[in-house]
Parts: sequence; C-alpha cells; structure tokens
Amino acid sequence: MNSTAPVFPKGSPLPKDWFVGDAFLTPLLSPDHNNSYSVGSVWFEKGARTNWHTHPKGQNLLVTEGQGFYQKKGKPAQIIKKGDVIVIPENVEHWHGASAQTEMAHSAITNFEDDSQVTWLQPVSEEEYRTVNDL
Amino acid sequence: MNSTAPVFPKGSPLPKDWFVGDAFLTPLLSPDHNNSYSVGSVWFEKGARTNWHTHPKGQNLLVTEGQGFYQKKGKPAQIIKKGDVIVIPENVEHWHGASAQTEMAHSAITNFEDDSQVTWLQPVSEEEYRTVNDL
Repeated sequence: MNSTAPVFPKGSPLPKDWFVGDAFLTPLLSPDHNNSYSVGSVWFEKGARTNWHTHPKGQNLLVTEGQGFYQKKGKPAQIIKKGDVIVIPENVEHWHGASAQTEMAHSAITNFEDDSQVTWLQPVSEEEYRTVNDL
Repeated sequence: MNSTAPVFPKGSPLPKDWFVGDAFLTPLLSPDHNNSYSVGSVWFEKGARTNWHTHPKGQNLLVTEGQGFYQKKGKPAQIIKKGDVIVIPENVEHWHGASAQTEMAHSAITNFEDDSQVTWLQPVSEEEYRTVNDL
C-alpha cells in the first residue's frame, strides 16, 4: 500500500525556453467536450523552476511529492509541499518549482480560455531564486 | 523525498447512503469563477466502494494510492491502481472503489453541469462486488 514510488512517473524533459534546470512532464489528461482543462504531472529536480508566467483562466496545483516554492510577482515566496493545494488566479504573474535542496512534483490542472492556457515570460533569475531559498 | 505517507489525509467519513463500507473525503478544491469542477481526495478502505452513480458532465480520477476497481454497468470491471488516470464519461452508470484486499485512494475532478455533478443510485451488491473480486 504505502509504496515509496512517486504517484506519477517523471516523464519527458520540459523545454529550457520555459524552465530553468531539469523539469519533466507526464501528461495525464487533455481537454475534451467535458473538460475545459488539461492535467499534467510536473517533476522539478532540485533547483528547477518554471519561468515567470501567467494563466488566462488560472491553474490549480496538487503537490504530490517533496517541497518547493510558489511566488506571485512582488510578494514573498510561499513554501509548498506534498499534500498542498495551490489556487493560482487568472493573469497573475508567478512561478513555481523545487527548492534548491528538495525535489518537488505537482499535478497541474490548467484551465483553458479559448485555446490559450499560459503566457510564458522571463526566467526566474539566479538572484531571485537565491533570495527565496535564503542562500 | 520518498515519504511513505499518503499524498492527502484520509479525511472525514462519507455517508453510508452513497457508499458501502468505510470511505473518507478530503475536499481539495471548490468550483469558482475559473473552475467549473470540484476536486476531492477519496479514501476507500478494503471492501469500500461507491454506490452505482452517474455524472452529468463526467469525472476524472487520478489514483494516488493502492488498487481497486472501476466498472461501467454491463461491462467487466477494470483494475485501477496508483498512477492511473480514469476518464468517466457523462451519464454512464458506474462505480469505483477499493478491492476486497487493498485500500485505494484517488483524487476526483468532478465537472459541474449547472449546479449538478452526481446522481446517486443503488448500492453495489455483495454479489456484484464478490464477482469483480473473483471471490
């Protein structure tokens, strides 16, 4: 019952254009006539994080492994860990990822607005990342 | 990292009107202006299962612990286990739950049609349940 294996496999590498470090995706669910969202499991190795980005109709994260951060632009970063649920509002610039010392995985439920679900922005800089990690 | 604890806590007991055996719910997400679905983690002890039921706009299950069954009315039961994703169509009579020998937990993303997301029907009988468990 209490297997130590992650809930979902690590998956395939995510593009360096939108992520810093080693992040991976296992797609779980595509939008269809009932679901106006996709679901995917994202694995972040230590130090890995999304670029800053926005979602036109929000995103919900279910953290399934480890510990990391979620930060809205101009706000203190929030520690997120296995079992946490994060509701990300529409059109709010933010990033999420692992901590420098800990891997993190979350299932992301990402809502669509028409055909759009994310706008990618600039990377989270080394200085920004060191600050939230208190390094 | 590889904690053996379940991803989500067991939660509160679910009503015997709609479940056979001991099933529990941890609510994770409510519908809002961006989300036309709820998300909850349902824990089934060995032998526990939903009643037969339908969803007017479907439901998606992400199995996070253990092993159990998903059965559409008139079809063979399908074994479901940690890491599986189950897409349940709209208006299809079905049940899901643990096996007789194994606990099971899943996160359920349940779509709303207007204010409705489920119609509960009769219990899965002991005979039906013994059959799918091959007992």
